[in-house]
Amino acid sequence: MNTIIDFIHTNRDRYIDELKAYLAIPSISALPEHAADVRRCAEWTAEEMRRVGLDHVQLYETPGNPIVCGEWLKAEGAPTILFYGHYDVQPVDPIELWESPPFEAMVRSGEIYARGAADDKGQVFMHLKAIEAHLRQTSRLPVNMKIILEGEEEVGSESLDAFIRDRRDELSADVVVISDSPMFDRGVPSICYGLRGLTYFQIDLRGTASDLHSGSFGGAVANPAFVLSQVLAQMKDRGGRVKVPGFYDAVRPLRDEERAEFKKLPFNEKHYRTELGAPKLFGERDYTTLERVWARPTFEVNGLQSGFTGDGAKTVIPATATAKVSMRLVPDQEPDTIAKQFEDYLRKVTPKTVALTITRMHGGRPWMTEFDNPYVQAAARAVERGFGQQPVFNREGGSIPVVATFQEVLDLPSVLFGIGLPDENAHAPNERLDLGNFHNGIIASAYLYDEIGRLTGHAATAESGGG
Amino acid sequence: MNTIIDFIHTNRDRYIDELKAYLAIPSISALPEHAADVRRCAEWTAEEMRRVGLDHVQLYETPGNPIVCGEWLKAEGAPTILFYGHYDVQPVDPIELWESPPFEAMVRSGEIYARGAADDKGQVFMHLKAIEAHLRQTSRLPVNMKIILEGEEEVGSESLDAFIRDRRDELSADVVVISDSPMFDRGVPSICYGLRGLTYFQIDLRGTASDLHSGSFGGAVANPAFVLSQVLAQMKDRGGRVKVPGFYDAVRPLRDEERAEFKKLPFNEKHYRTELGAPKLFGERDYTTLERVWARPTFEVNGLQSGFTGDGAKTVIPATATAKVSMRLVPDQEPDTIAKQFEDYLRKVTPKTVALTITRMHGGRPWMTEFDNPYVQAAARAVERGFGQQPVFNREGGSIPVVATFQEVLDLPSVLFGIGLPDENAHAPNERLDLGNFHNGIIASAYLYDEIGRLTGHAATAESGGG
Repeated sequence: MNTIIDFIHTNRDRYIDELKAYLAIPSISALPEHAADVRRCAEWTAEEMRRVGLDHVQLYETPGNPIVCGEWLKAEGAPTILFYGHYDVQPVDPIELWESPPFEAMVRSGEIYARGAADDKGQVFMHLKAIEAHLRQTSRLPVNMKIILEGEEEVGSESLDAFIRDRRDELSADVVVISDSPMFDRGVPSICYGLRGLTYFQIDLRGTASDLHSGSFGGAVANPAFVLSQVLAQMKDRGGRVKVPGFYDAVRPLRDEERAEFKKLPFNEKHYRTELGAPKLFGERDYTTLERVWARPTFEVNGLQSGFTGDGAKTVIPATATAKVSMRLVPDQEPDTIAKQFEDYLRKVTPKTVALTITRMHGGRPWMTEFDNPYVQAAARAVERGFGQQPVFNREGGSIPVVATFQEVLDLPSVLFGIGLPDENAHAPNERLDLGNFHNGIIASAYLYDEIGRLTGHAATAESGGG
Repeated sequence: MNTIIDFIHTNRDRYIDELKAYLAIPSISALPEHAADVRRCAEWTAEEMRRVGLDHVQLYETPGNPIVCGEWLKAEGAPTILFYGHYDVQPVDPIELWESPPFEAMVRSGEIYARGAADDKGQVFMHLKAIEAHLRQTSRLPVNMKIILEGEEEVGSESLDAFIRDRRDELSADVVVISDSPMFDRGVPSICYGLRGLTYFQIDLRGTASDLHSGSFGGAVANPAFVLSQVLAQMKDRGGRVKVPGFYDAVRPLRDEERAEFKKLPFNEKHYRTELGAPKLFGERDYTTLERVWARPTFEVNGLQSGFTGDGAKTVIPATATAKVSMRLVPDQEPDTIAKQFEDYLRKVTPKTVALTITRMHGGRPWMTEFDNPYVQAAARAVERGFGQQPVFNREGGSIPVVATFQEVLDLPSVLFGIGLPDENAHAPNERLDLGNFHNGIIASAYLYDEIGRLTGHAATAESGGG
């Protein structure tokens, strides 16, 4: 590995110049006027993959943007990594808040500023440079690699799911590697081993055919805005515990090792509360804030709408009341089971004075690879090599739907090895990437392939899998 | 009275022609482009008042539209009626739904169609024609009359309150007569003896400085949309009874006579429910629907707004949640007392996880003149003469702020003697007035002055007054 690491150190500046060229392409998938840029970016990505020495690089057309694939499969007997990333980026509005043009990458104070720097071009490029270093110096990789880079991640990955399902066999591998998330904090490299799932609903209550005058009719009929409040209030108790029967049945309890790991993290409750601007932190008793956010399911009201909401006063009894609600799920809660339990309970607690319509919006499975999984442990060793310190093991409260898809369709564990920082403005003006983390990340990626290459293929999967 | 009634019968068609001229003036107070029409209407009204024989008719300028006053004060020893009405009308949009132009009054099937026919020009004109009949036939009125007609009723009567307070002495009288409300139903002439009051609030809860991602932060903080639901749910119990401590303390119980009177009314619960399109009627136990709407206080949620309310799903924890809420009040609830009780209770039940802001929007006192009040009974006899049947005594669930003002500032009882019908589209396209009711209303008004004239002034007020 030494010659590989030397090569990486020697080429440090070249990597930054090349990354600037990648970041110059405004591959904004959300804006139709950038469709040509998105395609140009796919082609640039493919060309770069060929340059670093990957085989069979090609663009696959989809109903949306092309998916770029490549591979290197000559490490006989070694495990296969399926590497996933995306080459599309978020829009840049409000453009006036950018300190330098979003598609003219500039280095300031050791950080490179540009849209896509952290999310996700910088992290994809880190892997391409690690692959390049291996192939230039040894003409081989220590693992087999399959690479799949999509151009619709920022608009819901609509084409990806079918693509994966249609190519179940071609995409067979031993482990998925994704670098599209932040580390826990600056100076705290981390490996994420769990994500929450989701089930999301719209609830519509109708009381009457049209809005009524609250003077003429107040007292005659139920008020759907009030009934909605009554109904929602029954979803959680005062302590923040969800009251939907059966909701916690499948929740995998936090292991002592996990709780101990979380406790080690540099987390300041007071600072966190102040940053959020909250009068108090609040949630289920007997769990710390990080445990609640990462490893406990929730019920949230995401939106409320009913009646008169303008300035001033209007004495109306609303005809309808609508709520958007969702539940974050943890392993081993099944979204369909929870959705059914929720719908049954909702029907039960909604009085007959209103007509109830439940719309199931979308959902996603929670995901977890236990952190003693051999691939996760291999990644931890690689990160330690790259960053000079042991990574922490964390979970995330959000979802990355593709992770659940890889688990569900391909039955693969994932290693989430991200080198962004939580404050690098992934979806905001002045997105940036710390170039120290970028450089260390290339080294860690090079070691990651080496560490995974040392594992016996397939056998390593025994402990993988989540909910 | 016979010559007077003969005169009214003889002039039936002339009244309709004159009313058409009155209805032709588009005195829409809500639209600045009709300001000149509003003034023209005030002048037309004043001219008509002079024509029928009233004295000292003049326009009083206000910061808004002129108030037209006139009087006839030569019935020495007799009581004084303060007659209130308004000459402004509602806008006409959506104009395309009108079957004939709103300011070209047309008679179809015994009804006159025009904006203002029922609300309130037709009912004002009915009184002017009754006054005219008395003065033409006998050169006198059996009562003293003070008339006050405003031009801002449809936009909140902003100038009226100060006008009344400034002229407390000039407006002294024994009873207020208002004809600006519907009768209970077609063929059911009625006298309204009670109105509900109101106290209205906006409630704002803030959880965090900005909206949060429900994945990254769900479980860390209280969700203000959920907290709002919890808080609102504590305002009423399952049976529809308001839980604000002290809320019912001042409520004047329904008298057996009132309940008996309400039971006589032709009211079909099933038809009412079907018309509203409600799955069920609902409200406080042990009260009928009419009792609940007319004589019981309520708590209503008038609006809800929080977080994401567009199409689709957005996984947000809202930073804020807002509700508009109001309580309808009945005698002898005081809006200020109830407002304070509500605010205290709201502060008590709102958890410290959110910041609470309460904004008191507006309020109005409930009003009631017991229906055995001599003026109310005089009006009942007059209606029986005009319509050939005894009127029913009803209350209304809404408010007419001016009634509370007359009670509060002038300490006068009011007689609400309306001849509109509930389905005459007072604020909607195709407003109309039944010409049979108009004609009978002129006769009833003529008798009303006679009946009140027979009462001894001042002494008759002994039983007046409400909450």
